[in-house]
Amino acid sequence: MKRIQYDALKKLVFDILKKGFGYSDKEADFTSLLLVEADIRNIPSHGVSRLDFYRKNLEQGFAKPKTEPEIVYETPSSLVVDGRDGIGPYISFFSIERLIEKAKKTCCAFCSVRNSNHYGIAGYWAEMISKENMIGMSFTNTRACGIAVNGKRRVLGTNPIAVAIPEGAGKTFLLDMATTTVAHGKVEVYDRRKKPMPLGWAVDENGIGTTDATAFEKLFYGNPNYGGHLFLGGEGEENGGHKGYGLGLLIELLCAGLSLGAASYKTFQKGQGSGIAHFFAAFSLSLFGKPEEIKEHIGAILKDIREGEKAQGQERIYTHGEKEAEARQKNLSEGIPIDEPTWDLLKSLSFEFGIKIQ
Amino acid sequence: MKRIQYDALKKLVFDILKKGFGYSDKEADFTSLLLVEADIRNIPSHGVSRLDFYRKNLEQGFAKPKTEPEIVYETPSSLVVDGRDGIGPYISFFSIERLIEKAKKTCCAFCSVRNSNHYGIAGYWAEMISKENMIGMSFTNTRACGIAVNGKRRVLGTNPIAVAIPEGAGKTFLLDMATTTVAHGKVEVYDRRKKPMPLGWAVDENGIGTTDATAFEKLFYGNPNYGGHLFLGGEGEENGGHKGYGLGLLIELLCAGLSLGAASYKTFQKGQGSGIAHFFAAFSLSLFGKPEEIKEHIGAILKDIREGEKAQGQERIYTHGEKEAEARQKNLSEGIPIDEPTWDLLKSLSFEFGIKIQ
Repeated sequence: MKRIQYDALKKLVFDILKKGFGYSDKEADFTSLLLVEADIRNIPSHGVSRLDFYRKNLEQGFAKPKTEPEIVYETPSSLVVDGRDGIGPYISFFSIERLIEKAKKTCCAFCSVRNSNHYGIAGYWAEMISKENMIGMSFTNTRACGIAVNGKRRVLGTNPIAVAIPEGAGKTFLLDMATTTVAHGKVEVYDRRKKPMPLGWAVDENGIGTTDATAFEKLFYGNPNYGGHLFLGGEGEENGGHKGYGLGLLIELLCAGLSLGAASYKTFQKGQGSGIAHFFAAFSLSLFGKPEEIKEHIGAILKDIREGEKAQGQERIYTHGEKEAEARQKNLSEGIPIDEPTWDLLKSLSFEFGIKIQ
Repeated sequence: MKRIQYDALKKLVFDILKKGFGYSDKEADFTSLLLVEADIRNIPSHGVSRLDFYRKNLEQGFAKPKTEPEIVYETPSSLVVDGRDGIGPYISFFSIERLIEKAKKTCCAFCSVRNSNHYGIAGYWAEMISKENMIGMSFTNTRACGIAVNGKRRVLGTNPIAVAIPEGAGKTFLLDMATTTVAHGKVEVYDRRKKPMPLGWAVDENGIGTTDATAFEKLFYGNPNYGGHLFLGGEGEENGGHKGYGLGLLIELLCAGLSLGAASYKTFQKGQGSGIAHFFAAFSLSLFGKPEEIKEHIGAILKDIREGEKAQGQERIYTHGEKEAEARQKNLSEGIPIDEPTWDLLKSLSFEFGIKIQ
């Protein structure tokens, strides 16, 4: 494990994206920001190791650098953006900057985006909105990997929900969660260790729950259609799988539905852009009274929850966003942890594109 | 099982509420509506059997009939309502009628409500908004029964999420789900049958997962503080319990936080109203383009999902709201199913208050 300072890592990733991948300055700027912001919060699954995936998206024509998004519809409280197959983090920044501008005037605004690409950690965008004393929401669909209750074909993405609420004293409640039970990376860990994964994570090619991580890995990468992730609550209805599936479907409708975009099961089709769709919302605390008073009340509720009595053997009750904010603080001073395979990737990309690592 | 026609059942419940419980005409009207609308959709846990619970709330002073809600804050796109400990369904109708009026002018509106009471099925209110070509959201907190991840004290309610999206052809996508894994009624069934309940539903007084439904029932009603329901995803983080807990907490902040109201763990305190808080949102499809075109696109996505290939042994993939809409249709013509204990309750209340059952 290596530790790299924030600015140095961001600069390196920026250079790779600009010189190596042909991103525009702005595209490289926001993409490097989003990748580094994932690593610094200890979310390496969405960090600079994704450069590999971003590169493949270029090579396969799913994402096209140096592309300007276009506003295709707008009202005083809304905009619909066509990303024109450009770069997700830049399209998202473009959209949210305008969303916030509108919400500052009307106290609330909504934005749906079609034909975008992977936009980094969903929570970053929700948090960006929340810095304006607003509640921020950020949702996206993804490549299809999830199964409907009673289905066996991959139809929905991991379809994350991110909501940020300012809680006063510079803190933010930030819920950022895939609606699937787990991210695919967790299955990979069980496959590598040859351990059975818990029931409730995935189904096989017949749509039946499986604990065989190795067989599932083969199926997932070998078959484009069958077997996939379960949503929060697992298989069937006993532990609420229909609720998690409902949340995933809700995100699909808000993203792909409201933007007239592609649903997850129609993304990443050969010869087209990936077609990823997002949905953003911003609404001001001032809709409900004095923002300072509301933040204080929200902060007091969260404090009560955190200070509640702990279960046997537990030392701390977290509220959402705390772990990531604390990791960010620590890694900002100590350097951002980068594992060996990721460091090797950075070195090899730098060598390939003639970038000096400082 | 008895079957009673919609109008007859609503009239009977109206009479009990008005003559027996002292509700005003409007309070009795909307409360009987909400209870009957639950039974007709095959959601008896929220149906007329709740009259017992509603009566106890009056006797204990948690709810006060003949009470007018008050708008304590408003903007062109929002209102904050103080229910003044009145009757939940009337307070909710009062709030949503004004919410829709505002949203018709500004395309989106938000409403937070404090000092209300049980408002019936969350989904009814979301659906009411969706009939205006808007997306409707309806959330509420409840009496504390749920446990934070790593906690052992009941701090959050079942905190349901309801979202309604018009999908064209008179149909509505309607997600209406408690954020806890299951409603308490499901535990009762396992207790009665003396069967172990699944892991992931509840924890004991030490905050440790339990399958002992009978011991849990004793704890739940015998101890005001410890042991309680788990949120979607169950105990700990392995199957995503932190996500379900995050959703429950999000609903708490939107309801109690934005209304400056009572959090679930401060509701139902002796000598006060119950203090239940709600949150409603409405935003128009016209924010994103032509409503008819958007509904068609949403309907097409939902149709694709429903028509997807089924898992082994399964015959149908549902999207949310279908089961309830189909039950409503059937029960509207055949009569609403009312089980024996509920029918006995209706007869005994009618006898007590001198109401003739027709």
